[in-house]
Amino acid sequence: MRAKQVYENDGLRTFVVVMDKDDEAFGQLTAFAGEHRVTAAGLTAVGAARAVTLGYFDLSICDYRSTEFTEQLEVLSLVGDIALKDGEPAVHAHITLGRKDSSTIGGHLQSLTVWPTLEVVVNETPAQLAKKVDPETGLALIDLSG
Amino acid sequence: MRAKQVYENDGLRTFVVVMDKDDEAFGQLTAFAGEHRVTAAGLTAVGAARAVTLGYFDLSICDYRSTEFTEQLEVLSLVGDIALKDGEPAVHAHITLGRKDSSTIGGHLQSLTVWPTLEVVVNETPAQLAKKVDPETGLALIDLSG
Amino acid sequence: MRAKQVYENDGLRTFVVVMDKDDEAFGQLTAFAGEHRVTAAGLTAVGAARAVTLGYFDLSICDYRSTEFTEQLEVLSLVGDIALKDGEPAVHAHITLGRKDSSTIGGHLQSLTVWPTLEVVVNETPAQLAKKVDPETGLALIDLSG
Repeated sequence: MRAKQVYENDGLRTFVVVMDKDDEAFGQLTAFAGEHRVTAAGLTAVGAARAVTLGYFDLSICDYRSTEFTEQLEVLSLVGDIALKDGEPAVHAHITLGRKDSSTIGGHLQSLTVWPTLEVVVNETPAQLAKKVDPETGLALIDLSG
Repeated sequence: MRAKQVYENDGLRTFVVVMDKDDEAFGQLTAFAGEHRVTAAGLTAVGAARAVTLGYFDLSICDYRSTEFTEQLEVLSLVGDIALKDGEPAVHAHITLGRKDSSTIGGHLQSLTVWPTLEVVVNETPAQLAKKVDPETGLALIDLSG
Repeated sequence: MRAKQVYENDGLRTFVVVMDKDDEAFGQLTAFAGEHRVTAAGLTAVGAARAVTLGYFDLSICDYRSTEFTEQLEVLSLVGDIALKDGEPAVHAHITLGRKDSSTIGGHLQSLTVWPTLEVVVNETPAQLAKKVDPETGLALIDLSG
């Protein structure tokens, strides 16, 4: 994984993060955010993967169910954000991927093994959009009430 | 639904709109655009829903067909715009959602019941990208000829 | 296809490109980039199509496989970039589309016949994110090492 700051405006930075073959994207993005002290940002990505673990929030158990896919996949869209959670930058992203037969799968991104590349654009956002744990679901949701 | 202006540059505003449990997102976004006089903007969102109505433009009837899904869904991507239509701000968005088995559905967004959250970023755009009704389809399409 | 520059900040331009009925979007976007000398940009789009050719990078042959769909489709998301490849601007985009039954298909965009419209937003990026051919796959990948 290599990251490059490509822009800055009003103190808000834009980074391009390029993942390499076999990088685990979720962990690497979290590490990138820690290293560069990115605490509030939006992110998008395109690229491809050879494995992915997708989460689905299951109301009946009030938790994520995970499904793993081990196959070559096109990353069709990846949209998410970086926000502080318990004082540390946390990545939250949803992903859609394309299979060999052009059908698609998607969910909450839990892990992704890059192959051969994943290009992520990270745009810092000005507001400290703090997240707060929602007692009903246990999920960290953006709290604009502060 | 709560909206917060998080940025302004050259008179162009960026808002974060956070929807709450059981909010109907399409109507709330339209109401938000009216209240804040947002007449030209792009929007993206992530979150989750417990119901959605998807439109598909059917050439054979030259109109949208609607399909309703009532189940917990991850909002994988939501891309759209706000533009003036008959003098009022109108929301146009396309959405992809993930199901329990990681398969995906999608279409033209007609309505969506949020659960537990939907985070929408609205970026004002400088041009008044006016829409004009296309006589062949009856759809309002962006008109750059003016 | 009509293109309009709607914004400029620090020398970085934002364009809206509106495709017309029956335009082939991939070729038109490449032509647009050449005409306006756009050599580094991100792009997103929404709209609809009456045909699309989707690529899938097949590891077993180390090349793209193409699948063609001829039917009315909603363009749910289109994410990509423009970068120099052998000195010329090249478009790279991934797309997700919605079918009549609300199922979705997607892949690497090879061609798309617009119907009735496709609205593309092109945002120039400051860095010259040069691409370099990866010898293992033959793909042009962004190279941040330079």
